[in-house]
Amino acid sequence: MVAFVKDIWVSLAQTGLRVTALAGGVGGAKLAQGLARAVPGGDLSVVINTADDFEVYGLAISPDIDTVMYTLGGIANPATGWGIAGDTRATLDAIARYGEDPWFLLGDQDFATHILRTARLRQGQPLSTVTAHLSSALGIASHLLPMTDDRVATLVDTPEVRRDFQEYFVARQQQDTVSGIVFDGIEDASPAPGVLVALRDADMIVFCPSNPIVSIGPILAVPGIREAVAGSPAVRIGVSPLIGGKALKGPADKMLSSLGHEVSSVGVARIYAGLLDVLVIDERDRALQPEIEALGMRVIVTNTIMGDAEDRERLAREILAAAVEDRAR
Amino acid sequence: MVAFVKDIWVSLAQTGLRVTALAGGVGGAKLAQGLARAVPGGDLSVVINTADDFEVYGLAISPDIDTVMYTLGGIANPATGWGIAGDTRATLDAIARYGEDPWFLLGDQDFATHILRTARLRQGQPLSTVTAHLSSALGIASHLLPMTDDRVATLVDTPEVRRDFQEYFVARQQQDTVSGIVFDGIEDASPAPGVLVALRDADMIVFCPSNPIVSIGPILAVPGIREAVAGSPAVRIGVSPLIGGKALKGPADKMLSSLGHEVSSVGVARIYAGLLDVLVIDERDRALQPEIEALGMRVIVTNTIMGDAEDRERLAREILAAAVEDRAR
Repeated sequence: MVAFVKDIWVSLAQTGLRVTALAGGVGGAKLAQGLARAVPGGDLSVVINTADDFEVYGLAISPDIDTVMYTLGGIANPATGWGIAGDTRATLDAIARYGEDPWFLLGDQDFATHILRTARLRQGQPLSTVTAHLSSALGIASHLLPMTDDRVATLVDTPEVRRDFQEYFVARQQQDTVSGIVFDGIEDASPAPGVLVALRDADMIVFCPSNPIVSIGPILAVPGIREAVAGSPAVRIGVSPLIGGKALKGPADKMLSSLGHEVSSVGVARIYAGLLDVLVIDERDRALQPEIEALGMRVIVTNTIMGDAEDRERLAREILAAAVEDRAR
Repeated sequence: MVAFVKDIWVSLAQTGLRVTALAGGVGGAKLAQGLARAVPGGDLSVVINTADDFEVYGLAISPDIDTVMYTLGGIANPATGWGIAGDTRATLDAIARYGEDPWFLLGDQDFATHILRTARLRQGQPLSTVTAHLSSALGIASHLLPMTDDRVATLVDTPEVRRDFQEYFVARQQQDTVSGIVFDGIEDASPAPGVLVALRDADMIVFCPSNPIVSIGPILAVPGIREAVAGSPAVRIGVSPLIGGKALKGPADKMLSSLGHEVSSVGVARIYAGLLDVLVIDERDRALQPEIEALGMRVIVTNTIMGDAEDRERLAREILAAAVEDRAR
């Protein structure tokens, strides 16, 4: 059976498997890179969260797009997962010399992205067009799609005050208790061109191991996207971002807890119930399998930690094999 | 007499001599720095050409303001006269990686200036306010005043075609024959706040050794400025940018020639006739003194080459002494 599945998989990959991934920050970018390597003859679209986008020094910053773009372009900083490898900070230091607070770390090479994006947006190009051109210039064959070309902003309610997302995430280092999340502007947002088509035509939809609340959450909240996933004939596979009740990176665990969710892959499965056919959980969470299966999804247990590019491709191949197996059932 | 003049000069400098300089690029910046050092207790305003301003990658670039600002701020690149000492070019290289032509050299620290200027202009601040804040942050006590807050663009007519100034100056390295110069928008421009007051209240007005056609020319062409200089009770002293019929830097000599001017300090004196009381020329042009005096201005003959900061201060002190002497006549 395994050999048979592998045959199907090889054949699918060669004939152009269409994969659409939903991704947020670093974890999403890593799996997206694995998928891009695992389906070289195929067609990968990555729908990326833009609700973290903001402006600093008048420049339009799209942190999640950039993390995916730098990772798939092979220039991401391996130490942080975001930013560009070997980047310097002469520009930011010079900005600080003018008395500005350099609270958001931007490297010199990184600034090039923000400068060009801002210029092109101001010329009237939509973010999806700008992103397609920038990522193509970096040699990326996959389709990087912002979830929307419209402005959506994640706002974080704390017991004291409502904060902008980057203020919560970067400036205050996620120390606030999160009592609520608002995606400002989401009701009026439309999926960017290509997003609904990529979901409709996909053989497989992957929820990357990104924060379910503030990374995958806003993507699904864009009117039309949740419905497209729910109604898709594709095999839909999610990867849990939690291992042993902890997020590998970022505040997903604390945020799930303070918002009343169970802080485990079971909690993640509940959030995605009705949208996923398969949830991939880490070996250390094997005991959670029955409870997740009771929610109506298959469970794949494997090592979900992604170190280098080979690691990411290994996980992507396991996910693809699971999709083929699911389809064969 | 010399001792007496020096006494007056020291006394004036201590009691707050008000000096207003008109300046363009590198030569203007050097003398402005000399003046700032020579009148430490005094009040220096520098009215700066903005007709070379342009946009690249969506950023507002003010080359002459920046050259004066970096020079007075003590951070200018001593090798070029423009740009920032020790600056790197990671951002520009990354912009080129996205397929853009890096035709205009911008350093990483330099980008900080353009980013902040652009952001503040887009917030609605006038260029004069932005310039005051940026230069103040660099510790500059002198008042750097753009000639206008309005958009003026120098256009260069060549026998074949009309070109943007930076296209002529940087991209094509001044190789075109200049058949005409247009200051687009100049009729509708007003002097920036502070400019007319600085000219009216000055004890001394200095025309720096900048290009008379495309650096000092646009400043004088802003409606109201030529009249303010012509009617000023200040001692008005110019420094010729030509030595032995050659410009130390830039295309002033070729441009004067192709526009039908005499390519010498006499030609410069004719352009400034009626506006200057004194013209400072280089020792190598001593023979031109009678011809220039016949145009109705006194002539000071000295070494006009400015190397290091001490050199610039030396020339500035000679100019100040000449002004005091002129006033004492």
